[in-house]
Amino acid sequence: MKTPKPKAMIVAGVMSGTSADGVDVAICRIAPGKGAPSVKVLVHRAFAYDKKLRAAALAAMDAKNTSTAELARLSWRLGEVYAECVAKAAADLKLKPQLIACHGQTMYHQGAAEKYLGKPLCTTWQMGEAAVIAERMRVPVVSDFRPADMAAGGQGAPLVPMLDYCLFRHAKKNRLLLNLGGIANVTVLPAGCGVDDVMAFDTGPANMVIDACMQKLYGKPFDRGGKIAASGTALNMQWASPFFGMKPPKSCGREEFGDAFSAKLMEDFKAEQPQDIIATVTLMTVFTILAAYREFCWPHLGQRAPLARATEMFVAGGGAKNKTLMRWLREAFAELGVSVATTADAGLAIDAKEAAAFALLGWLTWHGLPGNVPSATGARRAVVLGKVTGA
Amino acid sequence: MKTPKPKAMIVAGVMSGTSADGVDVAICRIAPGKGAPSVKVLVHRAFAYDKKLRAAALAAMDAKNTSTAELARLSWRLGEVYAECVAKAAADLKLKPQLIACHGQTMYHQGAAEKYLGKPLCTTWQMGEAAVIAERMRVPVVSDFRPADMAAGGQGAPLVPMLDYCLFRHAKKNRLLLNLGGIANVTVLPAGCGVDDVMAFDTGPANMVIDACMQKLYGKPFDRGGKIAASGTALNMQWASPFFGMKPPKSCGREEFGDAFSAKLMEDFKAEQPQDIIATVTLMTVFTILAAYREFCWPHLGQRAPLARATEMFVAGGGAKNKTLMRWLREAFAELGVSVATTADAGLAIDAKEAAAFALLGWLTWHGLPGNVPSATGARRAVVLGKVTGA
Repeated sequence: MKTPKPKAMIVAGVMSGTSADGVDVAICRIAPGKGAPSVKVLVHRAFAYDKKLRAAALAAMDAKNTSTAELARLSWRLGEVYAECVAKAAADLKLKPQLIACHGQTMYHQGAAEKYLGKPLCTTWQMGEAAVIAERMRVPVVSDFRPADMAAGGQGAPLVPMLDYCLFRHAKKNRLLLNLGGIANVTVLPAGCGVDDVMAFDTGPANMVIDACMQKLYGKPFDRGGKIAASGTALNMQWASPFFGMKPPKSCGREEFGDAFSAKLMEDFKAEQPQDIIATVTLMTVFTILAAYREFCWPHLGQRAPLARATEMFVAGGGAKNKTLMRWLREAFAELGVSVATTADAGLAIDAKEAAAFALLGWLTWHGLPGNVPSATGARRAVVLGKVTGA
Repeated sequence: MKTPKPKAMIVAGVMSGTSADGVDVAICRIAPGKGAPSVKVLVHRAFAYDKKLRAAALAAMDAKNTSTAELARLSWRLGEVYAECVAKAAADLKLKPQLIACHGQTMYHQGAAEKYLGKPLCTTWQMGEAAVIAERMRVPVVSDFRPADMAAGGQGAPLVPMLDYCLFRHAKKNRLLLNLGGIANVTVLPAGCGVDDVMAFDTGPANMVIDACMQKLYGKPFDRGGKIAASGTALNMQWASPFFGMKPPKSCGREEFGDAFSAKLMEDFKAEQPQDIIATVTLMTVFTILAAYREFCWPHLGQRAPLARATEMFVAGGGAKNKTLMRWLREAFAELGVSVATTADAGLAIDAKEAAAFALLGWLTWHGLPGNVPSATGARRAVVLGKVTGA
């Protein structure tokens, strides 16, 4: 295939995160721009998985006991669901996308090498059959964005920094972009940076642990608006995980902060009040982000400074709707001279950001352009991400 | 991406069949030709999986009990192995391929719809991470050929007929192409046919059942040269499977003729001599092919004749090395006026055929051309197969 000269296209980005609650579709206009492509979200819609599908997706992630048939069927069904979601969003917009960029549902992500059949290996796996989406929509699909970066020595994550760079870089201000999904991650954009100067890393859990505790303590999927956290008092806790000690680039997921992590936490706090536990894990999110910022972004004695001081932080992801989490973040970062706003304040809906990021990555792949930020993922080089399925 | 004007390319086709014994690599020169592309095998090499990998691959296929991590790791490792095999074959040839077309290892294939989470669904799944191959070789990869056909309503199989059509169509002769892999399949090429006139279908088991019986009775992976079958006497058997009654297009696999099928067969024959059992399952292969040919390719009273009579059959696949199987095939088809030869007699090494077929399909995809034969797979339309991973 030949890579055409970059041109403006309508691209549907499709994201489903580790919480497996559903699908975000952001249909964007992406065009070549000055220094970096421009990305404009034309429509954003969120679709919940139906209960059975959500249960199947959650059960399949890092499952210790599953069947090959179950996973094969789930991947196909996810493809059908993604196609339906894109079709609905496109109907709202009355504009058919020219390209679909689908992240898929992460089933397994292992950024650190472990031995398998006698040799070390990292691996990552997102499912949702692209051929099904391409056939139903009759639009080409780019899917499976993470393996190429990992094959090139990266962590396969984070991949959102390319969008952060394109939309939020600033000539004179050091900026932080924070995403509060199941996992929290930070992108650092030094003033006047080029794409090679961007740093990004996961800081630890965000909604993943809060949601797990909400489910166990209240039978609810999440702490709406952060009301329960606001009603509690945070307890002393040791948030211990080998992940916190690692240096960036680093990424984490359900393997580090999934069921085993929250089960241990619940066990440690079994004598405590439920609202206090929710407050604790909400504050843990704030503290782990703050600690990572101080540890990795601030100048230390005798070290080359990666970033003097940021003055602005923009937050996206479902966690940006948790008012308690946002208030505590604001308070914590205010002490360091960093203002905290949502990306919506800068014109990008908080729920649309990740889907828009994959729309951008799909557009780059379609034009034969690399989409990973090696300084963020740790890859040896910038590579063209994903797989292209024709229509 | 733009699809360039078809041009000659060096393409490595990579095939690993349901027997999971290893990898065939056929590096081919594929060029636009009169009526259909030309395919010339420049080098063919077969590589055995190491024992641990083979055990892992066999255990993962249609596994009732596995883990998501195991499958994620296996897919990645298979990508590494495929890359190594292509590198070795390319070193032999002293010519780097411009494109790699990788079938992958089939983990699950379900051509008939069954309910899943309340809705009917077919699915197919081949693994072996293409991004790993692309990164190691720095060559673009086309992979995952079957889902696009299945998403378009086909069985996702057989896909070899496109090669059969390109290499074996004849202006004046009706021809049959037989492949004896784990499963046996026939391609029917009427004299002077266009690609829409090609018919093809699986006829039932070939090496899959013979090999399973050899393993259980003799502790050997297969009946080398058909010697054991030659020393036995075939028993009366009822080869019962709903598959035999189905009309083409149809495909089968380990789901129909895997462990459960051979275990039942062994139980039925437990009082018999082992060489007689091997002779029986070898003859079953011949009979099921013959029955399918008579049933589906011969004119029947009151039916439109799909093919008057074939006069030539060319056999490929590992089963073509089983001299007893080939002798019985020759004897059976001689009575019907059909001569039986291997594809090697026509210049195409029997082990190279499937790998060459995927090289051709990869070349077609690269140029935006469809690769399935809808009359063979049952798809609603001809579609561009596979996923393209950049390098």
